[in-house]
Amino acid sequence: MSIDLVAGNAVIGQSGGPTAVINESLVGVIEGLRQAGAGSPGNPIKKILGMRHGVTGLTNGDLYDLTDYPHDRLQVLAQTPSAGLGSTRDKPDSAYCERVLEACKEHDIRYFFYIGGNDSSDTCRIVNEMANETNYELRCFHIPKTVDNDLMVNDHTPGFPSAARFVAKACMADFLDNISLPGIKINVIMGRHAGFLTAASALARRDDRSDQEGGSTDGPQLIYLPEVAFDTERFVQDVATIFDRHGRCHIAVSEGISDKEGNSIGGMLIKNGQTDAHGNVQLSGSGALGDALSDLLKEKLTPVGGKQVRVRADTFGYVQRCFPDQSHVDQREARGVGRYAARLAVSGDLDGSVAIIRTSPIGEGQPYAAEYRRIELSDVAAKTKHMPAEFIEGHNNVSQKFLDYCRPLVGSLPLYERI
Amino acid sequence: MSIDLVAGNAVIGQSGGPTAVINESLVGVIEGLRQAGAGSPGNPIKKILGMRHGVTGLTNGDLYDLTDYPHDRLQVLAQTPSAGLGSTRDKPDSAYCERVLEACKEHDIRYFFYIGGNDSSDTCRIVNEMANETNYELRCFHIPKTVDNDLMVNDHTPGFPSAARFVAKACMADFLDNISLPGIKINVIMGRHAGFLTAASALARRDDRSDQEGGSTDGPQLIYLPEVAFDTERFVQDVATIFDRHGRCHIAVSEGISDKEGNSIGGMLIKNGQTDAHGNVQLSGSGALGDALSDLLKEKLTPVGGKQVRVRADTFGYVQRCFPDQSHVDQREARGVGRYAARLAVSGDLDGSVAIIRTSPIGEGQPYAAEYRRIELSDVAAKTKHMPAEFIEGHNNVSQKFLDYCRPLVGSLPLYERI
Repeated sequence: MSIDLVAGNAVIGQSGGPTAVINESLVGVIEGLRQAGAGSPGNPIKKILGMRHGVTGLTNGDLYDLTDYPHDRLQVLAQTPSAGLGSTRDKPDSAYCERVLEACKEHDIRYFFYIGGNDSSDTCRIVNEMANETNYELRCFHIPKTVDNDLMVNDHTPGFPSAARFVAKACMADFLDNISLPGIKINVIMGRHAGFLTAASALARRDDRSDQEGGSTDGPQLIYLPEVAFDTERFVQDVATIFDRHGRCHIAVSEGISDKEGNSIGGMLIKNGQTDAHGNVQLSGSGALGDALSDLLKEKLTPVGGKQVRVRADTFGYVQRCFPDQSHVDQREARGVGRYAARLAVSGDLDGSVAIIRTSPIGEGQPYAAEYRRIELSDVAAKTKHMPAEFIEGHNNVSQKFLDYCRPLVGSLPLYERI
Repeated sequence: MSIDLVAGNAVIGQSGGPTAVINESLVGVIEGLRQAGAGSPGNPIKKILGMRHGVTGLTNGDLYDLTDYPHDRLQVLAQTPSAGLGSTRDKPDSAYCERVLEACKEHDIRYFFYIGGNDSSDTCRIVNEMANETNYELRCFHIPKTVDNDLMVNDHTPGFPSAARFVAKACMADFLDNISLPGIKINVIMGRHAGFLTAASALARRDDRSDQEGGSTDGPQLIYLPEVAFDTERFVQDVATIFDRHGRCHIAVSEGISDKEGNSIGGMLIKNGQTDAHGNVQLSGSGALGDALSDLLKEKLTPVGGKQVRVRADTFGYVQRCFPDQSHVDQREARGVGRYAARLAVSGDLDGSVAIIRTSPIGEGQPYAAEYRRIELSDVAAKTKHMPAEFIEGHNNVSQKFLDYCRPLVGSLPLYERI
């Protein structure tokens, strides 16, 4: 243990949409701090505190004392989905961050860990700069988390692999449902700006089946990402083509699809929608986009034998981000980034974000390996990563490279037999 | 093996909404027939055929030959969700059943197995009566299947335990999501006439937590079943009470809730809805009911601190009936009822349905046991079982007896830790 540790308390917070593994990271930080002796007599790190509902709780003095939280309960907590400390949607501005720093001073906090997405890393960055300006030594670390998988530098982010696993399994089962009672099925999947989670639906397909036109006979046959401008007429034409070919069509649509002017299709459709701190219409927790696309197809597609084509839409909703069937890689890495952040803090590093960097090549059958790396807070703060062009194929599909990228993250999927 | 077996082929069909274990029953019948020597030289049962999309395929002569289907692929098929043979929504009337019988004669079918719900058992009943009337020896068996759990006589039906497992796990995760970012959350769950699946959401609660008023602090705190008349004003009041108490509210609503005149709330709300063979508006594959209840709460609930209360709705949709995380009890029993039906047919029984009868008492900690029993086709045909009064508590909850009934069926659920 470094001898130049500043004496004081540590605090950990969780922010933004919860995931199935965000508590792994919380437990990782606690374990990392305990390993450095936090809470032991004479150790400079006195207490390990938890913010109740992120910075909201910190500024209100609403803190848990986790210093002596029992080891066995921590292990169950790590496997518990959603944010055990409570989360927040507050997006602090400068004035708010000043109150965060004041609260740190008041509670003698010298180690600050914030688990979250790009907004949370921005909170870390601002608080860190303010601490530097006032010469208050605060070791300030951001720990990545988001099912959207949209943090810069990172190969992927904790939370994404487990959510992708749910999406892949749900689409697999729903595709088998779709061939048993044929028709058109739309599934709306999370991701306002980045299409990674919707793209993961492609893992539902079995490799060995493609039709004469080279398309997949397995669903989803059509995948619509926020990165590709959505054109309503082209969508209807796409569905009609697949339906004519197979007598059925299985579709994955991102909740974040936008037209070529960048207007959110869902945002325009959701009436009585509530807006978040950014003024965006809340896309999750509403079936409006799926229902509207379903109505559109019922209206536009030619009836078969005088009967309207069977169209159904499901919106996967919140269950996809917290379903308790975590990817093992995700669990291990979420714990790992938490531990790594604690290690950085007790090794003399003053600030930073932890990134997951893949060290193995992306390719079929390649064994997967990754490492953690400290990066600057400004490398990730308030920035959004999108699906790179090499992961996208045409206007309604993902590439083989994306499948090779994603497959090792989600873990093994059930085998299926089709007669 | 009985020596008075009639010589001919066997056919198996799957009908209605698919489940995660309906292929277990298909494989069970095949295994039962093979055990009796079906397909072996000299055996009276010559071929094992599969109807492609149920009676639709049978009447069109669209049949699979499963006689020599490889054993190892059968084992994977058994674990594959959804109807491997394809399903149908056709509800045969007398004329249709006559064509079914004609097809049986044409394909020399003497053993008829139909896996499905109450409509499918009615098809069996009619076809069986017609066969008797024309002195065509047809051994006609219905094998139970429905996530709705609404077949008479049966303690429960194959497919229900796995769907209930999904509902319980999804509600558990979603409740943890709800306490991390508090607000009001509505989950709409399948079941047009019977509330069993919605009731299974109560398994998401941990036993050891109740509030001072004796209610659950764990979600769902409010459960609305089709068996209890739904009153909009009372619903708003219920939610307001829980929200005032906890600052959050987690709600499970059956898609089949109806007002006191018996009008389906969802049916009235879903615009552009498609109707099934019974003329009912299709409730699944639409987010309309959840969105309408959500809008209602946003409109009626008093804002907190000048801000509209956060309300979200998810509709679990088709994924709940086929998600590949089957209950082990369900897998075993679905296979068991299939094998049992085959055994009845080769033991000289002429017709019937297989029922699952619980032989252990319902109560906390009681080891679960059940047996299969032959019942008359007319015992289940076209009848619907509802949640018995002893499983319902008040107008928005289920009883301890229901929990004791349901818990052994779904299998072990993940442990959770709350700080």
